[in-house]
Amino acid sequence: MNLADAILGDPETLALIDGDAQIRAMLQVEVALATAQARLGMIPDDAARAIAAAAQGLIPDPDEMRKGTASAGIAAQPVVNALKSACPDHAGHVHFGATSQDIVDSALVLALREALTLLAARLQAVTDTLDRRADDFADQAIPARTRFQNAMPTTLGAKIAVWRAPLVRDSERLEELRPRLLVLSLHGAAGTSAAFGENGPALRKALADNLGLTAPDLPWHATRDTMVELGNWLALVTGSLGKMGADLILMGQSGIGEVMAGAGGASSTMPQKANPVAAEALVSIARLNAGAIGTLHQAMIHAQERDGSALAIEWAVLPDMLVRTGAALRLAQDLVETLRPNADLIEASFATDRGMMMAEAAGFALAREMPRKDALALVARALRAVAEGAAATLPDALDDIAPRDGGWSAFLTPDHTWGEAAAMARSGADKGNAPTT
Amino acid sequence: MNLADAILGDPETLALIDGDAQIRAMLQVEVALATAQARLGMIPDDAARAIAAAAQGLIPDPDEMRKGTASAGIAAQPVVNALKSACPDHAGHVHFGATSQDIVDSALVLALREALTLLAARLQAVTDTLDRRADDFADQAIPARTRFQNAMPTTLGAKIAVWRAPLVRDSERLEELRPRLLVLSLHGAAGTSAAFGENGPALRKALADNLGLTAPDLPWHATRDTMVELGNWLALVTGSLGKMGADLILMGQSGIGEVMAGAGGASSTMPQKANPVAAEALVSIARLNAGAIGTLHQAMIHAQERDGSALAIEWAVLPDMLVRTGAALRLAQDLVETLRPNADLIEASFATDRGMMMAEAAGFALAREMPRKDALALVARALRAVAEGAAATLPDALDDIAPRDGGWSAFLTPDHTWGEAAAMARSGADKGNAPTT
Amino acid sequence: MNLADAILGDPETLALIDGDAQIRAMLQVEVALATAQARLGMIPDDAARAIAAAAQGLIPDPDEMRKGTASAGIAAQPVVNALKSACPDHAGHVHFGATSQDIVDSALVLALREALTLLAARLQAVTDTLDRRADDFADQAIPARTRFQNAMPTTLGAKIAVWRAPLVRDSERLEELRPRLLVLSLHGAAGTSAAFGENGPALRKALADNLGLTAPDLPWHATRDTMVELGNWLALVTGSLGKMGADLILMGQSGIGEVMAGAGGASSTMPQKANPVAAEALVSIARLNAGAIGTLHQAMIHAQERDGSALAIEWAVLPDMLVRTGAALRLAQDLVETLRPNADLIEASFATDRGMMMAEAAGFALAREMPRKDALALVARALRAVAEGAAATLPDALDDIAPRDGGWSAFLTPDHTWGEAAAMARSGADKGNAPTT
Amino acid sequence: MNLADAILGDPETLALIDGDAQIRAMLQVEVALATAQARLGMIPDDAARAIAAAAQGLIPDPDEMRKGTASAGIAAQPVVNALKSACPDHAGHVHFGATSQDIVDSALVLALREALTLLAARLQAVTDTLDRRADDFADQAIPARTRFQNAMPTTLGAKIAVWRAPLVRDSERLEELRPRLLVLSLHGAAGTSAAFGENGPALRKALADNLGLTAPDLPWHATRDTMVELGNWLALVTGSLGKMGADLILMGQSGIGEVMAGAGGASSTMPQKANPVAAEALVSIARLNAGAIGTLHQAMIHAQERDGSALAIEWAVLPDMLVRTGAALRLAQDLVETLRPNADLIEASFATDRGMMMAEAAGFALAREMPRKDALALVARALRAVAEGAAATLPDALDDIAPRDGGWSAFLTPDHTWGEAAAMARSGADKGNAPTT
Repeated sequence: MNLADAILGDPETLALIDGDAQIRAMLQVEVALATAQARLGMIPDDAARAIAAAAQGLIPDPDEMRKGTASAGIAAQPVVNALKSACPDHAGHVHFGATSQDIVDSALVLALREALTLLAARLQAVTDTLDRRADDFADQAIPARTRFQNAMPTTLGAKIAVWRAPLVRDSERLEELRPRLLVLSLHGAAGTSAAFGENGPALRKALADNLGLTAPDLPWHATRDTMVELGNWLALVTGSLGKMGADLILMGQSGIGEVMAGAGGASSTMPQKANPVAAEALVSIARLNAGAIGTLHQAMIHAQERDGSALAIEWAVLPDMLVRTGAALRLAQDLVETLRPNADLIEASFATDRGMMMAEAAGFALAREMPRKDALALVARALRAVAEGAAATLPDALDDIAPRDGGWSAFLTPDHTWGEAAAMARSGADKGNAPTT
Repeated sequence: MNLADAILGDPETLALIDGDAQIRAMLQVEVALATAQARLGMIPDDAARAIAAAAQGLIPDPDEMRKGTASAGIAAQPVVNALKSACPDHAGHVHFGATSQDIVDSALVLALREALTLLAARLQAVTDTLDRRADDFADQAIPARTRFQNAMPTTLGAKIAVWRAPLVRDSERLEELRPRLLVLSLHGAAGTSAAFGENGPALRKALADNLGLTAPDLPWHATRDTMVELGNWLALVTGSLGKMGADLILMGQSGIGEVMAGAGGASSTMPQKANPVAAEALVSIARLNAGAIGTLHQAMIHAQERDGSALAIEWAVLPDMLVRTGAALRLAQDLVETLRPNADLIEASFATDRGMMMAEAAGFALAREMPRKDALALVARALRAVAEGAAATLPDALDDIAPRDGGWSAFLTPDHTWGEAAAMARSGADKGNAPTT
Repeated sequence: MNLADAILGDPETLALIDGDAQIRAMLQVEVALATAQARLGMIPDDAARAIAAAAQGLIPDPDEMRKGTASAGIAAQPVVNALKSACPDHAGHVHFGATSQDIVDSALVLALREALTLLAARLQAVTDTLDRRADDFADQAIPARTRFQNAMPTTLGAKIAVWRAPLVRDSERLEELRPRLLVLSLHGAAGTSAAFGENGPALRKALADNLGLTAPDLPWHATRDTMVELGNWLALVTGSLGKMGADLILMGQSGIGEVMAGAGGASSTMPQKANPVAAEALVSIARLNAGAIGTLHQAMIHAQERDGSALAIEWAVLPDMLVRTGAALRLAQDLVETLRPNADLIEASFATDRGMMMAEAAGFALAREMPRKDALALVARALRAVAEGAAATLPDALDDIAPRDGGWSAFLTPDHTWGEAAAMARSGADKGNAPTT
Repeated sequence: MNLADAILGDPETLALIDGDAQIRAMLQVEVALATAQARLGMIPDDAARAIAAAAQGLIPDPDEMRKGTASAGIAAQPVVNALKSACPDHAGHVHFGATSQDIVDSALVLALREALTLLAARLQAVTDTLDRRADDFADQAIPARTRFQNAMPTTLGAKIAVWRAPLVRDSERLEELRPRLLVLSLHGAAGTSAAFGENGPALRKALADNLGLTAPDLPWHATRDTMVELGNWLALVTGSLGKMGADLILMGQSGIGEVMAGAGGASSTMPQKANPVAAEALVSIARLNAGAIGTLHQAMIHAQERDGSALAIEWAVLPDMLVRTGAALRLAQDLVETLRPNADLIEASFATDRGMMMAEAAGFALAREMPRKDALALVARALRAVAEGAAATLPDALDDIAPRDGGWSAFLTPDHTWGEAAAMARSGADKGNAPTT
């Protein structure tokens, strides 16, 4: 147990892809293979039945698994050996004509299908919750900040809608990649299905049907683009959540405090603190997955029909990425559920700004009545007045320089200047970046 | 000029996305913006006309561009300033209500559209050529090698078909990501379209139509998933080509020499050499893009409504990835066109193997007539005989141990043992990993 | 020209390592090689003189350089060819017994020596300036923030001293790595110096002396640890500057504004803004170099005696890292020089905190007079009172709950609670993390 | 249990840095802190004694550790809480004035010291063994290969000496970084040692002495260069071993087989195979650590006085790097011990080359008697004769074209043309790249 896993891990996701899950899935593939082969007359029926019975409840010795994997350089062999030992009379029909990589990869795909079901559900829940919260805070004014400076008013709902948009696209992407990913592997030692004789295509079809996968025409032992595509998807999801985490950290930091989310971690020595542990974890996970996807891409440079040096990179990187994505979605769900603006502190932010973030809006308003150049010169004068302390706020300065009916402060309010923010929060949120038409 | 660019660069791709192309595209966006705003009555018609005229043929001073970009931290500002200077009477209507990021991003999308057209065409050409070459060498026996050891016979055409499959998937992926990527940016300073008043949606629609893009409902200033998705696609393409490059290096290396491709680079001191420069470059590019995509993902953690520290990462990484992908596709095209097996050396490879890579096939053949366990024991005995020098080849050893009508060497030939290889080369190649049904 | 280079580039560093500098350095190595060989009687004196004369002022055609590099896969060959063409009667004695990699690497080392001189000087200047500024602001109170929350008071000088410490270590590291890095390459085609006959060691010594490098006993054509060590150093430097950049962004952000530095970039549409362009660039560069060093390490996995696929990674990555490091040091120098606290806004930060960041200090003070557990309970009560609005500040709350002579607000001041901060700023700063003794 | 860990893990290294080791080290630090504070009169003697007694044999509940770490975002807090619970009467003097980060980091340094002792010993053993094996095979001819093509003869000992050189430098580097790394952390909540009053420096000195570390003048909570420097060192070590692994894979591949090492992994279906599992693992580990160091550098961009998002990256990345480095050294030791040339296959490699790799040597020999240009023309003619089948080997061709006393084949032997290879294997090996003088 690494203690950092307590922060960045997710037991539920891990359970779907860890060593035990791998072994279970490999046994499932071997049993389904034997069953399909028996149906096609490639092995005797009783062999298939015996193999299925032997696999039932078989829990291979972990130590044997570890040693066998270390010596063979692949996890299938000790599993095959354990299965053979469990049905010694039919050992010759276990793993018949398959290669280790077929079993490891088909089992991986089965495990990924489960993991993706979990992740997709969490992603949908986060997306839905963001939709609801965007609506909740559609009209909650808050400063937009570009390059760490006050830009103009927006609403908290609009910020939330922006967080949500890439996640909607991620759901789309998952639907697109799933059929490429959920593909059986069964092309035998050299990727030619040689040991299956004439039965290769029929066997792949039968086994794929049995496992709910599609059957490939070509081996993918050495072309790992679908795994890397999955890794990239994971990093896209956590990257978008990392952006949300970064925003929550910045909005919740001392001296700003406009929005809080989550419970807040205690300090060991400073009693006043509530650290943004979950939001920080979203950022950590995003950066870890970003680094990991770069490493995973290195595994595409795969020599010949099978390259153990490339495969082990994938085996080391992908599970961590999956688990961390599970963690990020779980943490995000809690943050989004518990997100709460502090209206007083938001108001304080606007007060501290002294109306300066309304400068663009003032310029456009003035430009309706005079050449734009003159309008901008007036605004610049007003900003100087505020900076030099000659006026308390930009509206005050403008009242002096370019009086307006009703006064500038009644006009330069957040809700007059936040443009489409409230509308985006309400309706835009459920469309992602889809075209208007 | 970095000399490494000579090896890894691609002038044609570069020309579509370099500084000059960026400037041209930004001017195109500003003109289209003014035109659309005039049509909607947001700015005077003559301003739009003057802006268009000023942009026509405008070549901003490179030094000004560099200085302006350095001081503003974004490339749009010096371009906007240059355009304003070129139509001083209408300067107030240039870049009206837009933010720098809108212009930079919309221009980027326009440049990417051009670059992707080039890359997609090259990808299609490489894929088509691989298809043809797979057919050419569908029946050319060659050892399959797994984990750097002879596995079983396959055919060169099957190897080529395997190289091709991920590129077919990459074409699919490009079609999927293109609509997410080719999206206008126009949401103004705070992403709220505030300065456009009621006209925001109509203006976005008009401008998007004019530029042939789609109009987004939400700003994507700070959610960069579409750019990262593009980067990932580039790395997938170069990763798959890197696998091909690695295979070509290994097949062409001294002592193997089964397949050569490309012209071969000369050594400065060893007259006998023909270095696999292009194949090596495919590997280099794959590894560079793999590293780059990891860095690019870091740019997703983007603070608030705009984060200059994240954007500059994207600006530094993406152009290099695009250029290298262009180079990889160009180099791959030449390698695939010129690829040629050396039948003598391939035969020598089989001879050196002494039939041992037929061991699995022998085992399956024997198992038709005896329990599989016994069959495997016989094969093991035969392999030992070869290893100890008691027999010259595996067929010879089997002839001693388990004689067969017609003799083992007539049976254990590549074309008897390459399974579906030839068929995969011919028909499988054009289907990628698509399901059998 | 990529416009992003305007933000992240550094022309001065680039000039020391770009294509022209590479060519100049390669010619220098070839001339020095010929001179040393003439002295050892390996080639005629007049050949050496003719080679030196030919190299003098030779500016090879850029197009030939590019083409020759692309076809050979290494930059030395076109340079050697151009030099041979410039002294056709002595062409046979140009590059005598050397291999391309010897020339490219020795020239690289010469260029790196120049570049490191520049970078070391800038690093020293930044370090010295930080030392001075730490002193300037040794007593300027400012909140320390841990995990984005107010922690306790510190001083701006202490923060600056902390920024400085790793840079002092980086200077140490540079001195350590320099002798490993500045090593001649001259071991010929196979790394065995075969073509030099008995003269290998003497020739390496003579050439190394001539170039001011050390002579290696073993070839380093294929062991690139010294280059990767350099890359790591560059990333360490920019990483530490990136931390400073991140701090400056956070301290200067709207709503905090405690410290400003640099000029601030203008917005294209928001007249009130002054974007932290240089501080953002420090962060971008740190993240880009972090990504790049990961890629560079991939180039250590270098096949056999020379691996073009690994070398090209180095050639693509290292120059960018050097240039960006030059840029970061230049930007940092300006930021540190111009760094200025805003005393009013710092005071506002303390005011907003309402004394809560003094909670730990209050607890320790109370614990001098009562069991620590009771002290902490009192502080917790006081914090609650502030949170609930029952008291305006923590000192006020404590005055109610646990009155103290002179009152708590006179005691819980920054300068009473900043511990060693001022002392660290003054004296600690020039020691880095060196041991106290 | 991830099955990939069986291949890439190292239980011995893991045991020094895993969760249990972290907890033990944290307790050690807390006890040493209390002891030092008692000596300085900061806490009562009996409190220190009680804390030490409570820590003795304390095994905190793993579940509590996990939950506490998750909620606090740092591993120290649940440990501190467990320790307090184990000495409730003295709880107030546990962790007195320290911050979580002090404990986590000081404990980390203690664990790293142990881990580095193990790794350094393994590194030394590998280096020594390489030295011995270089000597063993100093005169074993073998082709040098550059860019995957035969270059010239060298010796296996020379190849081994080249593998060894960077490891010698790594030992040097470790000595250099160790004093920077093995530094106490104890600067309290805000890095100002505020809670220690006047005792800060004396306490740091006392605690550092007690733990065998050095005491820093400045906090390093937020400046992580020393950890990243360690990570870089780990990646340098595994990168150099990865190069050795790649060479072993290539030398041992089917069709070459010049050198074998290690036991060879069995295939699940191909009985003839002996997969280079350990050599592949060296490459996998090198690439994983290369990727990881890039991610670790991202953690240097650390906000303010403590940044949980950056720290968690370090916590996730560094342990894996350490374990993998331990594994790589262990695997390398076995490979180097068992490395064995196959003289027949090496001879076959030379035979297959038909003397062409002696072309440079022939050119230099001929050039002693004629202008170099003419010599090279003769060699080119001879190479063509071999390529066209007009001569069986380069020596034969030269015998026709430019006869030589005793014949060319007696002259163009590996031992005449391997230059300094044998000498490098014998004496060079123990010097690394150190200067000749």
